[in-house]
This record gives sequence, structure tokens and C-alpha cells, in this order.
Amino acid sequence: MGAGIVGSSYTVDTPMSIHFLTGSQNKLAEMQAILGDVEQLDIDLPEIQEIDAHKIIRAKLMEALKHKKEAFIVEDTSLYFDALSGLPGPLIKWFMKTVGNDGLFKMAEAFGNYAAEAKTIIGYTDGSGNIEFFEGSVRGMIVAPRGETNFGWDPIFQPEGKDKTFAELTAEEKNSVSMRRLAAEKLKAHLS
Amino acid sequence: MGAGIVGSSYTVDTPMSIHFLTGSQNKLAEMQAILGDVEQLDIDLPEIQEIDAHKIIRAKLMEALKHKKEAFIVEDTSLYFDALSGLPGPLIKWFMKTVGNDGLFKMAEAFGNYAAEAKTIIGYTDGSGNIEFFEGSVRGMIVAPRGETNFGWDPIFQPEGKDKTFAELTAEEKNSVSMRRLAAEKLKAHLS
Repeated sequence: MGAGIVGSSYTVDTPMSIHFLTGSQNKLAEMQAILGDVEQLDIDLPEIQEIDAHKIIRAKLMEALKHKKEAFIVEDTSLYFDALSGLPGPLIKWFMKTVGNDGLFKMAEAFGNYAAEAKTIIGYTDGSGNIEFFEGSVRGMIVAPRGETNFGWDPIFQPEGKDKTFAELTAEEKNSVSMRRLAAEKLKAHLS
Repeated sequence: MGAGIVGSSYTVDTPMSIHFLTGSQNKLAEMQAILGDVEQLDIDLPEIQEIDAHKIIRAKLMEALKHKKEAFIVEDTSLYFDALSGLPGPLIKWFMKTVGNDGLFKMAEAFGNYAAEAKTIIGYTDGSGNIEFFEGSVRGMIVAPRGETNFGWDPIFQPEGKDKTFAELTAEEKNSVSMRRLAAEKLKAHLS
């Protein structure tokens, strides 16, 4: 219990609220569950064309800071094929939009290498313009699509140690191998 | 020969100079050869993450117009695989940077469809904010890399009607099948 400020509704223990730039309710809920006081800011900031997620996140945070000098987080969760030296990475949405899960699986097949990594990178700024990154990743295999197809590339990613794809796992099982949770916990450790 | 303006170094026939936003001397020379008075403006405008080249070009032109209300052109030249529904398209540079020409050929192989299009899209604004697009495209096949490797994906693109890749053609032969020239000629027709 920290030193309460008389007449104020908060104590100095309470960190200032962090603005999470995302359009996703699921991502927001996951971040709130770990970090507590996180507010969604559903602004659609343009994404620069880059294969390095750090640069994309940095550009978004710098853009957000132009609007207000407060604490922000931006995250990128992407799928990285070992065989493709960084592809699809942050470009995953265009692969989904064009060749889709079937096409992604065909690519892994073509290269004879199914190893992949699902990685979340969280960029955090306290409002100063200084940016820190926190990563969480889960290794796995690209497989022919299995399971519900309503969440991006979940049907083709089978995390190590599981015989099911992300799309086949229950929410609880999926949380146990969440790259987003791993990244958020690193940020949490940093903040406290 | 137009009506000369006394004491001026130009005539009213001469259109105002167009600023071509590019870092490439080759592209500049090709554009100047067709359009005449084109000035290079080597500003590195950030490219938005998009698979639709029109949107990328539009964003760049709108950004340029924030600086001055003059005539600008921006071009995008990309390679589109029939099998990949629009990929690599404007994302070609990231494919080059990661899997390279060998990887791109493997992808065509994996999908069993080697047909592709090399396409230039020129976006033009007269300074008003109104944007017009002019396209030139060349059909061809994706082949295993052949020829000089110093110019992007030239070694894997063999235009229809030729038995050589872009990288194996002489400059003169390549100009005879230039998607950039086709697009620039449409713009020229529009301007005159």
C-alpha cells in the first residue's frame, strides 16, 4: 500500500494508465489481464512498409506521441517461417489476404521446411519518446490448415509440444502457449 | 513552335516542370526521355503497408502535396505472380530481401504456375490533389534466375515473345518491352 495523496482518487502506487493502440478486443483483454490499467485507443495509424516489426511499432508510437505525450503500447504479432528469412513476418496480413492459409502451407512445403515462430513484439513508451521492446515467442510447425478458420493463421500453426493447431486448441490451452502473454509479462516486470 | 514569351527562357508550349519522386537515376532518365521536362526529387517518403500500389502511390503524392502544390509523379514497378493473387506486388522488395530470386522461383514452382506480370503504375497530380493513374504492363514467365543479378528481379522475369530474361536482354531490347515506357507514354498522351 503506497502513500495516498489526500483528496485524490489515486495513490502514488498506481501507475499512470497506458494507452494500447489496437482495434482488437481480444488483444486488449489479454493485455488488461496481465497489466491491469490499460486503456484501448482504437486509432487506425498507418503502418509503414517494413519487414522489421520494431520499425513499424516505432513509427506508430512516434505518431501517437505527436498527439499526446503519454504512455503508449503498440504490439505486433506475426508468423515467421524459418525457411523464408523473416517472411511473412509483419506482412502476414497480405499473405492471408492473397494466398491465405493454403498458400502459406504450400510455401512451407515448397521450401521443405515447416519450422516457424509465432512472435509478439510489444513496443512501450512512457511518453518521453524513449521506446523499449518486449518479445514473446512460441516455436512451432506450419501444417495443412486444421480447425476453426475465423482467426487468421491459427489453423496452420501447431505450437511445439502440442498435437493441435492454435485453431484447434481451447482458449485456455491457447493461453498456456501465448506469445502475447510472454511479451506482456516482460513488460509488466519492467514496469514494476 | 509555340508563342514565345519575350524576355523569358520558356514558351507557353512548355508544360510546367513535373517533380518525379524517385531515388533511381535509371527511372528518371527513362521518364525524361519520354516526358521531357521532369525534375528528380529524391525525398524518401515512407511507404505505407499496402498491397494495392494505387494506395501506396496516392499516400506518397498526398504527402508530397503537403510540401508544395505542384505537379508530381510517383511510380511503382512491381512483379505480380498470377498464382499469388497480387503477391509479391509492391511487397516485392521484401521478397527480394528475404528469399531473393531463388525463393521467388521456388514459390512459382510450388504453385505450378509461372505466369506473371511486370507492371508499372504511375500516379500523377497536377498539384490540385486530383490524382490520375497510368499503367503499363508486360506479361511473362517466372524462370530460374539467368543473367546479371544487379537489378532486382530481372533475372527471373522472361517477357512474352522473348527467350531471354530481363537480365539477359540488352538495354535496347529491354526498352522495347518496358512497362515503364508504356505507362509513361499514356501519361504523355494525357498531358498533351
